[in-house]
Amino acid sequence: MALDENWYTEIHADAGSAFSLKVRRKLHDEQSAFQRIEVYETEGFGNLMTIDGLVMLTDRDNFVYHEMMSHPALFSHPHPRRVVIVGGGDCGTLREVLKHPEVESVVQVEIDERVTRISEQFFPALCESNGDPRAEFFFGDGIQWIKDAEPGSIDLIIVDSTDPVGPAEGLFSGPFYTSCLRALGSNGLLAQQSESPLYHTQGIIKPMHDEMRKAGFLDTLTLHFPQVSYPSGWWTATLACKDLPITFVREEACENKGFETLYYNDAIHRACAATPEFLRKALMG
Amino acid sequence: MALDENWYTEIHADAGSAFSLKVRRKLHDEQSAFQRIEVYETEGFGNLMTIDGLVMLTDRDNFVYHEMMSHPALFSHPHPRRVVIVGGGDCGTLREVLKHPEVESVVQVEIDERVTRISEQFFPALCESNGDPRAEFFFGDGIQWIKDAEPGSIDLIIVDSTDPVGPAEGLFSGPFYTSCLRALGSNGLLAQQSESPLYHTQGIIKPMHDEMRKAGFLDTLTLHFPQVSYPSGWWTATLACKDLPITFVREEACENKGFETLYYNDAIHRACAATPEFLRKALMG
Repeated sequence: MALDENWYTEIHADAGSAFSLKVRRKLHDEQSAFQRIEVYETEGFGNLMTIDGLVMLTDRDNFVYHEMMSHPALFSHPHPRRVVIVGGGDCGTLREVLKHPEVESVVQVEIDERVTRISEQFFPALCESNGDPRAEFFFGDGIQWIKDAEPGSIDLIIVDSTDPVGPAEGLFSGPFYTSCLRALGSNGLLAQQSESPLYHTQGIIKPMHDEMRKAGFLDTLTLHFPQVSYPSGWWTATLACKDLPITFVREEACENKGFETLYYNDAIHRACAATPEFLRKALMG
Repeated sequence: MALDENWYTEIHADAGSAFSLKVRRKLHDEQSAFQRIEVYETEGFGNLMTIDGLVMLTDRDNFVYHEMMSHPALFSHPHPRRVVIVGGGDCGTLREVLKHPEVESVVQVEIDERVTRISEQFFPALCESNGDPRAEFFFGDGIQWIKDAEPGSIDLIIVDSTDPVGPAEGLFSGPFYTSCLRALGSNGLLAQQSESPLYHTQGIIKPMHDEMRKAGFLDTLTLHFPQVSYPSGWWTATLACKDLPITFVREEACENKGFETLYYNDAIHRACAATPEFLRKALMG
């Protein structure tokens, strides 16, 4: 069946697949200093934001991504007090991080202020914690920011970026991981979005593990989860630890967490690092 | 971006989403006694079979579905000797079941023989075990077959059907579950594909649990897994047990399984029943 002009479509050219959402109307369209940002009202997924024609998030399914980019890492750190989010301009990851009372400060380092402003306007739920006094917003280059960070000053770095092309390319590289390691304190963790297991195991996930370890991280671990509106509908986050093995160290705190989630819970935490056989073999090789 | 005529598209109207695969050519198109069956050669997913315009399987991603429809149930039964597959005409589930040396007989009860014949032609890898002397093929109505089965004669029933519309509708109903329970022996298990957690929790998954329990099954459990070419890219199988709680009872056998898989392994088994928070709440309510 063909799609008429009432559909937004993202083509994943290398995979020969495409994902489409039925659109009611375009709400916003602008070329920022960095990229083209569009917002649509869809038929079944609420509002949709795209950057340079690629899905960034929808109202309906962003909860899985934002929860899985934050809670597994936060409950794997014994004392996560100082968090930095690189990217994450839509503020959804920030909102999840701020649900943790142990967290004392979160700096969101987003290169494009317009992403955050547009998110405030069209995704207000994701921005509902932006006024939290623990949150700080810096609009500028995340690579430079991490490079300049005081050594040992961060407990958790979350890299919530676009795909490794354009502005985000340098976030998937050895020099950036070396800066991250230096900026992290003892027990420090890095969590980075690492694309699709079906489409990107050889091209992105495996090289990411290799680069993180070469940079000096003790261990690495890829979590996977459904992410309906991203290529293949299946996504990953990769964790790297500075000096303490990656374990579910605050399991009891998680079981008694005093906040709501829609996807994540303690059972999901225990489950999300179970590695599909093909991925396990690829990462061993 | 618009898709030209070189794409196959499945629209999920209720969700306002669509999934597309780039097609090189159509390999087959027929109207059987039951449904329209088409086969395409795609650009990135190998061959694709559709029934009445809906994706049944692709070469690239069917491994997740077929492994998850079979191995978790088989390793949760203490002695799975007699297996019946209702539907499953493409023979992919059959192939996985036959990897288990404990299995002594498998009857595949598919209503439409043409699905199997077309699969033999265009998906030969899935049919590579069809000559196994333990495999028996019956082409006819699965509901009647299960109704007529000798009480207590089956260890595991796998319902590998199309969506609950058309020929498969009766497979998602109380009377069918009552017949299944009667046909199952002690420790018996039922495993059924149960659609998407994001799209069908209220419409299919929850009613399925309710109907299975009303029919007299002791307990029910939904497993979830990525399934890229199905609606939302996220899918489930629901297990129901006759008289023994659903547990990973043959964990050691799984850890030492002597056969290859691409998605499933013992870690995935332990993980796949971790229920997302929204689904857990829906099933409690």
